[in-house]
Amino acid sequence: MAAELSPHLLSEKHRPTLDRALEAIRSRDYWSPHPEHPKAYGEGGAPGSLGAAEGKAAFDAVLHTRIDLAQPGTDGWTGGEVSPYGPELAVEYPHADLDVLLPAMRAAMPAWREAGPETRALVCLEILARISARTHEFAHAVMHTSGQAFMMAFQAGGPHAQDRGLEAVAYAYEEQLRVPRTADWSKPQGKRDPLALHKTFTPAGRGISLLIGCNTFPTWNSYPGLFASLATGNPVLVKPHPRAILPLALTVQLAREVLTEAGFDPNLVTLAAEHPGEGIAKTLAVRPEIKIIDYTGSTEFGDWLEANARQAQVYTEKAGVNTIVVDSTDDYRGMLANLAFSFSLYSGQMCTTPQNLLIPRSGITTDAGDKTYDDVVGDIAAAVTGLLGDDARANGLLGALVNPDVKARLDAAAHLGEVALPSREVTNPEFPDATVRTPVIVKLDAAKTDGEPPYLAECFGPVSFAVAVDSTADAVELLRRTIREKGAMTVGAYTTSEEVERAVEGVCLDESAQLSLNLTGGVYVNQTAAFSDFHGSGGNPAANAALCDGAFVSNRFRTLEVRRQR
Amino acid sequence: MAAELSPHLLSEKHRPTLDRALEAIRSRDYWSPHPEHPKAYGEGGAPGSLGAAEGKAAFDAVLHTRIDLAQPGTDGWTGGEVSPYGPELAVEYPHADLDVLLPAMRAAMPAWREAGPETRALVCLEILARISARTHEFAHAVMHTSGQAFMMAFQAGGPHAQDRGLEAVAYAYEEQLRVPRTADWSKPQGKRDPLALHKTFTPAGRGISLLIGCNTFPTWNSYPGLFASLATGNPVLVKPHPRAILPLALTVQLAREVLTEAGFDPNLVTLAAEHPGEGIAKTLAVRPEIKIIDYTGSTEFGDWLEANARQAQVYTEKAGVNTIVVDSTDDYRGMLANLAFSFSLYSGQMCTTPQNLLIPRSGITTDAGDKTYDDVVGDIAAAVTGLLGDDARANGLLGALVNPDVKARLDAAAHLGEVALPSREVTNPEFPDATVRTPVIVKLDAAKTDGEPPYLAECFGPVSFAVAVDSTADAVELLRRTIREKGAMTVGAYTTSEEVERAVEGVCLDESAQLSLNLTGGVYVNQTAAFSDFHGSGGNPAANAALCDGAFVSNRFRTLEVRRQR
Repeated sequence: MAAELSPHLLSEKHRPTLDRALEAIRSRDYWSPHPEHPKAYGEGGAPGSLGAAEGKAAFDAVLHTRIDLAQPGTDGWTGGEVSPYGPELAVEYPHADLDVLLPAMRAAMPAWREAGPETRALVCLEILARISARTHEFAHAVMHTSGQAFMMAFQAGGPHAQDRGLEAVAYAYEEQLRVPRTADWSKPQGKRDPLALHKTFTPAGRGISLLIGCNTFPTWNSYPGLFASLATGNPVLVKPHPRAILPLALTVQLAREVLTEAGFDPNLVTLAAEHPGEGIAKTLAVRPEIKIIDYTGSTEFGDWLEANARQAQVYTEKAGVNTIVVDSTDDYRGMLANLAFSFSLYSGQMCTTPQNLLIPRSGITTDAGDKTYDDVVGDIAAAVTGLLGDDARANGLLGALVNPDVKARLDAAAHLGEVALPSREVTNPEFPDATVRTPVIVKLDAAKTDGEPPYLAECFGPVSFAVAVDSTADAVELLRRTIREKGAMTVGAYTTSEEVERAVEGVCLDESAQLSLNLTGGVYVNQTAAFSDFHGSGGNPAANAALCDGAFVSNRFRTLEVRRQR
Repeated sequence: MAAELSPHLLSEKHRPTLDRALEAIRSRDYWSPHPEHPKAYGEGGAPGSLGAAEGKAAFDAVLHTRIDLAQPGTDGWTGGEVSPYGPELAVEYPHADLDVLLPAMRAAMPAWREAGPETRALVCLEILARISARTHEFAHAVMHTSGQAFMMAFQAGGPHAQDRGLEAVAYAYEEQLRVPRTADWSKPQGKRDPLALHKTFTPAGRGISLLIGCNTFPTWNSYPGLFASLATGNPVLVKPHPRAILPLALTVQLAREVLTEAGFDPNLVTLAAEHPGEGIAKTLAVRPEIKIIDYTGSTEFGDWLEANARQAQVYTEKAGVNTIVVDSTDDYRGMLANLAFSFSLYSGQMCTTPQNLLIPRSGITTDAGDKTYDDVVGDIAAAVTGLLGDDARANGLLGALVNPDVKARLDAAAHLGEVALPSREVTNPEFPDATVRTPVIVKLDAAKTDGEPPYLAECFGPVSFAVAVDSTADAVELLRRTIREKGAMTVGAYTTSEEVERAVEGVCLDESAQLSLNLTGGVYVNQTAAFSDFHGSGGNPAANAALCDGAFVSNRFRTLEVRRQR
């Protein structure tokens, strides 16, 4: 049977995009094939893509239905997601008998291995293209599982996630091509005939790859691992967060459709939705068939995986404590606006949101004059208040709290110190059941050293600590301690001093953290761009991998050699 | 103070070699800058190199001395190596106070990081060049710690080890250059000004790298990890096997000499020799300063490291069970000679030596007629006997048993089944105290399934099992089980059938093992060539890393980014 998606057709459609992606990861310039603007989709936009109304209709149509993926070993149905905005999604997903599903996935490997790195990459690009065409539909699915506001769900859950997936494919493809397919080796032996061998080298996947999705970024945090594993020859079992199944179920559905059309076994990508309280991730993680795990979530479970899933390569993004060192600035208003936005975006529910502002007790110098610690904290509080004063704008930036735990942490944070900015309840007229809150800013003092200070723990959600320190030098040392002991996905600093800049940079290089300096415009410390920025460093306790680099892909396959005498 | 070894001088001396090595790892052709022939060194040979007599004299001169490396925190002296050939080496080495030594090593990192990938690579090449010049001296040091015969100690301990070190440097250098030093990123914003960032990317080492050396290949198994870590910006603490300190102490001495001359802190490479019974590796492995570990040795301690040294990247080469599938051949004599040599070389004390010969009970077809199982086993035994009949030749191939454990295993093996070829004691006239033994070949039957069969455990040393199987298909399945459960550094097969070839290849690709097919000439299954062959796959239980590939280097450093607004 001829495949509908022949290698020739795939190459014609996607090889230029792959080449451009390879160029981008080498130059690290700005590039993306996935438009960020909602109007770029649908009629007059990307061919075959769903427009705003079509995307919404597609999302509505899937609610109250069963997504039957036709997976082997389906032994029941599960689901039960409730949107952080209130509505029940009422979508049912297959529940899998692992003893049937895993062998079926393993059986799909040899043909996928034989397809080779280019075909695997091009199939991945076709999957991404189909996801891209349905970005409007995915935006609603991400919004109603993560609680992100629509525009953020659209961009971060759509084009930005697709970019990260494509980036991973480009790295995976390049990595597999570093060794030639064949080599004729000939070693001189003086007057005797040379020793001569013909060698073949085959990149081969390790086994089944388990993707453990998260609640807040079901697509963005999943696509790198999913596509890196698939492109390197591994079947991928997708285990979504029980509250964020839909975006990954749609992803699996499209992947299976493309694989089938390209003549491959659809069981290369499958879904493992679980019954409430089943805790399937722990069972799956130690199955001998699972050779790779990608995980985003709590430090506790990430550490458990690293310690216990010894048969697998484990890539984790866990929790960290992100710091901003405030020393001085020549754009005080820009700094305030930038920080206010960073704290507010998605209610601080990003792993990259800054938590601790380290501000010298004696104040800072700025282009608007010297500012005391209290001035700075007060001005940031005012900037947040100004940014979020209008409820419509606040709803558009904050989204909804993803779950009751975040709300509980927010409430508790107000008791940790003096509240510089109380959290405000915002009403969402479209979704009155959504829990929408502005960030709280709490004053703490680094000089108070009784017990573990609260700012040395991650307080995930809309909580910022304005920590008074004795000096910038002390801030730099506290930064070092924070990264070393707690990890950090991001570090920021504001300074006009070259010496301070060098000191902060030195700490980040020593302790392995990614640094943003003096951001006062439209780029925020909590946002990274695929093909150019690294997400995490992989070198501190917040994450053992970075998106995306050679180390993220190079151990997902092994290069196997066959030597024959010539 | 101007460094004696300026970057310019280093580049002039070594950049062409680095470029050639980069070419070699991409083409995987034969190449080596390190001559294999002893006469290539000394007068008329490589400039500045020690000839045979000079090398021997240098080795003799170091015996009964103290090697003082001028390391910080030296709190005593240790040593006590006894050659497997008999003589006491009586060399003393510094014993380190880790609480002094480790901080000194950490302090050396920033300048080494700032030096950048090229300078680091070139410094590594200068260290390798100085080691190469003293290959004759190292040959004696390796011989009298590992028990290898002189010619093997010369080649495997000298040029082949240096090749593997250089290969690791080439991989490390290339990996660090995949991201540009800087990028100017500019993201269009429609009618508004683009978002613009200036980005710098710095490859930064993770921390102190611990090298745990082994008894049998003190240089060959150590140089890849040592140079991969050093070239990626990490200080390296060398913890030699207590019975094989000298070759690594000389290595550390030369590395410190070169680092000093190049203007770097010599504490980037240090030695941690231990007192008898101190078990320092276990203490060191879990120190928070240790971020990378390279280990060759027992599965038991390798597994312990992987489970417990959670703060570090751990690269292990452990034990495996290497199999040869014997199905058919069109060069029966060539096969017998090739196998006899593989079993005999260094008394089977290589991690790559084949252990299990799987032979169909019904016999095999060959160019010399059909052969029964008993014929094949008898003919291999005769080939070994012929190869090792002459004592001088036997001594030159076998070397000495490295330690009493090997001797004990050899003696015990004779009781595991019917002995097809008994081990013979060989006298070494030059070193009468050496324990020299020819390999034993023991007949076993795969059909006898009571208990764990002896051929499913590694029996390290001169022991081969001729395992009768029901058919080639059964051999292939036993091969699969062996790799999956026990791991394998090498797999070999002899067959004239394309179908069998495909089946064996399929198992090796599925289970991640390196395969040699139909070797009947001067290339042996237990030998691999740097720049072309992979040593191990990193994908089965025998080793979690392969020499050398992207995965071996890419996680020894992290690429750290600093973003600044433009």
